[in-house]
Amino acid sequence: MSAAPDAAARPRIAILGGTGNVGRGLALRWGHAGYDVTIGSRSNEKAAQASAQLNSELGRNAVGHGGYREVAASAPIVVLTVPYAAQRSAVEEVADLLAGKILIDTTVPLMPPKVARVQLPSGGSAVAAVQEMLGSSVRVVSAFQNVPAHLLLDMAHDVDCDVLVCGDDVAARETVIQLIAAIGLRGIHAGPIANSAATEALTSVLISINSRYKVPGAGIRITGLSGADHA
Amino acid sequence: MSAAPDAAARPRIAILGGTGNVGRGLALRWGHAGYDVTIGSRSNEKAAQASAQLNSELGRNAVGHGGYREVAASAPIVVLTVPYAAQRSAVEEVADLLAGKILIDTTVPLMPPKVARVQLPSGGSAVAAVQEMLGSSVRVVSAFQNVPAHLLLDMAHDVDCDVLVCGDDVAARETVIQLIAAIGLRGIHAGPIANSAATEALTSVLISINSRYKVPGAGIRITGLSGADHA
Repeated sequence: MSAAPDAAARPRIAILGGTGNVGRGLALRWGHAGYDVTIGSRSNEKAAQASAQLNSELGRNAVGHGGYREVAASAPIVVLTVPYAAQRSAVEEVADLLAGKILIDTTVPLMPPKVARVQLPSGGSAVAAVQEMLGSSVRVVSAFQNVPAHLLLDMAHDVDCDVLVCGDDVAARETVIQLIAAIGLRGIHAGPIANSAATEALTSVLISINSRYKVPGAGIRITGLSGADHA
Repeated sequence: MSAAPDAAARPRIAILGGTGNVGRGLALRWGHAGYDVTIGSRSNEKAAQASAQLNSELGRNAVGHGGYREVAASAPIVVLTVPYAAQRSAVEEVADLLAGKILIDTTVPLMPPKVARVQLPSGGSAVAAVQEMLGSSVRVVSAFQNVPAHLLLDMAHDVDCDVLVCGDDVAARETVIQLIAAIGLRGIHAGPIANSAATEALTSVLISINSRYKVPGAGIRITGLSGADHA
């Protein structure tokens, strides 16, 4: 696992949907790791409340807030943590601001009420659809689909879950894996953006396991990597 | 993990495609666990050779052989371990012999040459397509998609990989989980047969990881189950 980069090398991170559990969990962990984060929301009130609470927990003014376009414009790394039903409209709203940037899309195409059943979206992957929509000028990377949100919010415990990282741009994937390492998780190169179909579908399997075994947060680990070159 | 059932309770297991790596690996491990196995092949010569070698390794006459229809007729549990391109024709050949039985389908819809890239089959899951083809009188259970075949063949080492088990018939899934436990692996209820789309797709992710990290057999473990009721 890599050490966190020094302060000068820490890019600002914008989180669209930053008032949800995944968004707040990531903001909290990146804030703890010394990153400056801006959370974006369609509700200014919610965003102000969430950032105030996060800054209080962090003991420093690490988390700013604003509207989607404002925060997306402010950072070279943009993270999408909105529900599936809001994914496309959120991306469309900021699309012209994303050229040359890395968009980390955490979307899982859950279709309530049957969230424990794999229901593949058109084309197989919700994140690959975003890469296709945005074109190759935006470096879309899929990550965090399988990490239980409440584990991200619980700073008292390590997160016992790997993060499968898919993307067509290997350097962008590597940058995201460094950002994941900075918050104490292991990111793993999981192939091109098309492979996000697997990690997205796996989330319904984990929800099914949670229900069957009455546990709060099943996750995954990749085995067989010991001794591997983790570059 | 459950103890193996006593001899009287051990059903015969037929393995179609039993001369391949997955088929031989499963035959070897079930043979070691006291089960009688029959491997089916389209080549009588290959089947005779494989069963002779397995029996020699097992030190008892545990593994018989025959054609697809002969072995499928002989056992209440039928396992399918043929390549994706041969899956449908193999099932069609024995379909009328499967009523009331459990069909454990290990198929992964790999489409060479891009086997490290998720390429979803029509409908999303190759195994769900077989359940649909056979109708509900056959209890189709998906399993073993993510276990590296060479680990099954290596009796000297434990297999560091869970087996995600999908199927619409919960009792059939449970029976398969017992058969998995008998060979020292942990099977996990992973939901309805539709969820096999996730485990099948995950295999391409694991192949991608093998390539990227230069390891022979990446696998998966489900985390967050400790203390759970593993029933």
